[in-house]
Amino acid sequence: MKIALAQLNYHTGNFALHQEQMVQQIQEARSEGADLVVFAELAVTGYPARDFLEFEHFLQLCDGVIASLAEVATDIGVIVGAPLRNTHGQGKPLFNAAYLLYQGKVQQTVSKTLLPTYDVFDEYRYFEPAFENALMEFKGVKLAVTICEDLWNVGHHARYVRNPLEEIQADKADILINIAASPFSKQQWEERLYVLGTQVARWKKPLLYVNHVGAQTELIFDGGSLALDAHGNKVLQMPFFKPDLAYVHYQGGQLTSEQPHHATTPDFNNELDAIHDALVLGIRDYFRKLGFKKAILGLSGGIDSALVTVLAARALGAENVHVLLMPSRYSSDHSVDDSLTLVTHLGISHSIISIENAFGAFEQTLSPSFEGTHPDITEENLQSRIRGMLLMAHTNKFGYILLNTSNKSELAVGYGTLYGDMCGGLSVIGDLYKTEVYALSSHINAQQEIIPNNILVKAPSAELRHNQTDQDSLPEYDLLDKLLFHYIEERKSPAELKSMGFEAAVVDKVMRLVNMNEYKRHQTPPILRISNKAFGMGRRMPIVARYLQ
Amino acid sequence: MKIALAQLNYHTGNFALHQEQMVQQIQEARSEGADLVVFAELAVTGYPARDFLEFEHFLQLCDGVIASLAEVATDIGVIVGAPLRNTHGQGKPLFNAAYLLYQGKVQQTVSKTLLPTYDVFDEYRYFEPAFENALMEFKGVKLAVTICEDLWNVGHHARYVRNPLEEIQADKADILINIAASPFSKQQWEERLYVLGTQVARWKKPLLYVNHVGAQTELIFDGGSLALDAHGNKVLQMPFFKPDLAYVHYQGGQLTSEQPHHATTPDFNNELDAIHDALVLGIRDYFRKLGFKKAILGLSGGIDSALVTVLAARALGAENVHVLLMPSRYSSDHSVDDSLTLVTHLGISHSIISIENAFGAFEQTLSPSFEGTHPDITEENLQSRIRGMLLMAHTNKFGYILLNTSNKSELAVGYGTLYGDMCGGLSVIGDLYKTEVYALSSHINAQQEIIPNNILVKAPSAELRHNQTDQDSLPEYDLLDKLLFHYIEERKSPAELKSMGFEAAVVDKVMRLVNMNEYKRHQTPPILRISNKAFGMGRRMPIVARYLQ
Repeated sequence: MKIALAQLNYHTGNFALHQEQMVQQIQEARSEGADLVVFAELAVTGYPARDFLEFEHFLQLCDGVIASLAEVATDIGVIVGAPLRNTHGQGKPLFNAAYLLYQGKVQQTVSKTLLPTYDVFDEYRYFEPAFENALMEFKGVKLAVTICEDLWNVGHHARYVRNPLEEIQADKADILINIAASPFSKQQWEERLYVLGTQVARWKKPLLYVNHVGAQTELIFDGGSLALDAHGNKVLQMPFFKPDLAYVHYQGGQLTSEQPHHATTPDFNNELDAIHDALVLGIRDYFRKLGFKKAILGLSGGIDSALVTVLAARALGAENVHVLLMPSRYSSDHSVDDSLTLVTHLGISHSIISIENAFGAFEQTLSPSFEGTHPDITEENLQSRIRGMLLMAHTNKFGYILLNTSNKSELAVGYGTLYGDMCGGLSVIGDLYKTEVYALSSHINAQQEIIPNNILVKAPSAELRHNQTDQDSLPEYDLLDKLLFHYIEERKSPAELKSMGFEAAVVDKVMRLVNMNEYKRHQTPPILRISNKAFGMGRRMPIVARYLQ
Repeated sequence: MKIALAQLNYHTGNFALHQEQMVQQIQEARSEGADLVVFAELAVTGYPARDFLEFEHFLQLCDGVIASLAEVATDIGVIVGAPLRNTHGQGKPLFNAAYLLYQGKVQQTVSKTLLPTYDVFDEYRYFEPAFENALMEFKGVKLAVTICEDLWNVGHHARYVRNPLEEIQADKADILINIAASPFSKQQWEERLYVLGTQVARWKKPLLYVNHVGAQTELIFDGGSLALDAHGNKVLQMPFFKPDLAYVHYQGGQLTSEQPHHATTPDFNNELDAIHDALVLGIRDYFRKLGFKKAILGLSGGIDSALVTVLAARALGAENVHVLLMPSRYSSDHSVDDSLTLVTHLGISHSIISIENAFGAFEQTLSPSFEGTHPDITEENLQSRIRGMLLMAHTNKFGYILLNTSNKSELAVGYGTLYGDMCGGLSVIGDLYKTEVYALSSHINAQQEIIPNNILVKAPSAELRHNQTDQDSLPEYDLLDKLLFHYIEERKSPAELKSMGFEAAVVDKVMRLVNMNEYKRHQTPPILRISNKAFGMGRRMPIVARYLQ
């Protein structure tokens, strides 16, 4: 039996596209002599479809795609993920299902049992866990089909009570098939291999794993679909961050492939390489799927905007990136010089627009109200907001999308101006701590100096007053980022952090800053997620709360 | 047996406050001769604690409060909601539990079985459903204690598979007790009475219902705790929108109360009365719990900002509300005049700040970049953003919180400027359609003209260009709001809407606007929720999607 694994880039709710893509893949697989094509979890809707799953009309469009695919699946089998109506009269109205289509109709379905409802996942919001499942049978081969999380009840930490592979009697199966929608994070690749390997070791069956590829707003699906034989050897590794169609053969209990190891870039031994490719895809898909082409951003002379500019140029093409340099009385000469060097290196277009005129107008307009007060954070925020306004004016006039350049360290402690540097349609590096911003920038410069070296070595500064540096108000980033990581990613307590050697006053200050700035993060653009705990949809905090404040 | 129902205003994560409040209530109840005090669901943490429930240290603080309350509960029983560790070794790490404290220790716990995971609720994100529960027994009386949603599997629509009252054998109970965290919405009060009445009718037992009161960011808990006798008669109705401690007696199978009917305001027969009180409490608690006193907002001369100003003055006191009037070349005379009349009616302070100077500076600064282009939405947005900047500058300089004045109709179709009129710390009327804004304003004016009548009768306009009105780009609000309601609240399909008589082109345009403006709503302030489907945490949509666009 020849089985095709179809790793596609979906676009949530774009049913016409999905149907066209999948029909095309089925036809190609058929022409290659495949018996069966396997698509990913909820391929019909795109993942995550979120509350669109509550719209009956949206579900009818899903049903329509399944019906059309079934018509094409005459002499070839298709396994595809889509919502399934719960007709049991109790429980949530849908299942998250895998359909087996063959001979022009739906032959069988299985439903997801373990519904991830944590971090960025909300599946129990929409789906009822499977009441019961069975093996699928196709041309005499028994398939233990599961859906993503169904395999993830391994390890010490038993998040779930049920075990889908046991319920389904996977010991009687010939092949395990897992259709997934598993987004990228720095740790995900390793965890995924561990989970898949553990299940193969337990059940001693070959395993096919088919994932999504492509970005859906914050979530970046890395693809990397694969096949393991019954001994856990990788017989197929599909590429990362791009679509592909590949084949395996199952015969006499053996799983083999003609093209076992696709050249895999990025190098997953190098985390920065993977992050780089993830962010480039994240930007590209955001623009492409929204129907935009051109990005704009403010180039300050600092490392954050420099890195975002490089990533944008790689994602969209240099011809589609325009930067504004917006100096003020507090800007250092090197800020403009370094920015211009980067502009030249990348071959992008730029404008230089001073904010002095607008700043003066605001000072004058506000002077009656502000009489008797002294300059403070207000005037710093004004400068940042004028820059935000100039950028937004360009987006309105010329149809750019503004890329936000805030990093995770800043977002964590609220070191940024709402409606100023926190503006934008997409936050590109909002899930990278400042130290990771430096590391990725150095990585980009490894072969050739693209980001001017001076940007990497100078002290970070918002340049909103004379001789300001970030470290006037924040701990050194090396220390801050460690502290933030232990608190945000690992949820350590103040006592634990102090016992780890962090200074008590610093711990208390940073915890307080993180928690009191929830209101700012509430209004940030969506953030491309590359960690297991990004700000945004995966970290849900009350704004009005008093905890460590 | 005398039982106290404690309806308190919690503050998420403020354990010191909760402990102090609850100990004080226990002592008061004891001094009144009560045998048992009942607090609400998750009273120890506040509701919703959201992802703080994933922090071990946060949970330890909960455990500490439970231990302290147990120490006080010597000769008096206490039922109180708090997280409970799941020690079964599988499933989510917590239960959402009710503790019975007595004789200085935890006597018994029951856990929530039905975990709401829809709209604003995320309980399955944190909690495992109860494995098994039993009746609680206190001084020989059998209590069927359930937690909020546990009673809500009534009606045609069976969202859940399990039935907690059946599992617990409520037929053997003497009293049903439900501890809740049930937020206000226009429909909630009626639904709640229906659910409670249905359970009493089925089980023929008296029922005590204890709810939260007070606002937690977007969610406004209305209180309204109550007691029904076994025939479904209301023997106690506690007040809405304020804390209270009240008592019932249980003897010989009968439930009675000495103060059966508290004067209930608002009048729940008048929806606008309830919405008014909900919003006032929502504003008040947002400020109080964040430690702020003073609000600022821009008074445009239109109905939205007028209404928000009235609500703010009622919530915070006239002396704590400052408004900016920010006219431009496009402002009509009546905008300033009407605003000044309102300022006088309310006795609040104001400043008049022209945006012309700043607008001119931006035009000049942008003229090289914009050479050869014509004025368009860009220049309109600039004006709105200048106003946003002036308001934010005042918040920074003087410690105000900016109140946002966007309404639900605008937010739905994207008729607003990001970083302009969409700025603010809290959206007060973002869950009121424009027609509801008018209705509530008229309601406020019913006794006395507070909002100048001219504001209620003139055509709505953003005044960002000459002779502009909202209806230049939008359908009439009467029609628009109906369409929005059917789509947002009822999730009707385009075909259904058209068959209801809405013009096809209007339906298609409005659907498209709603879906394509998700990116704007992503960056709005938290919105006080008064409907069953507010924008914000209860409506989760992908930004990059193609559905009805």
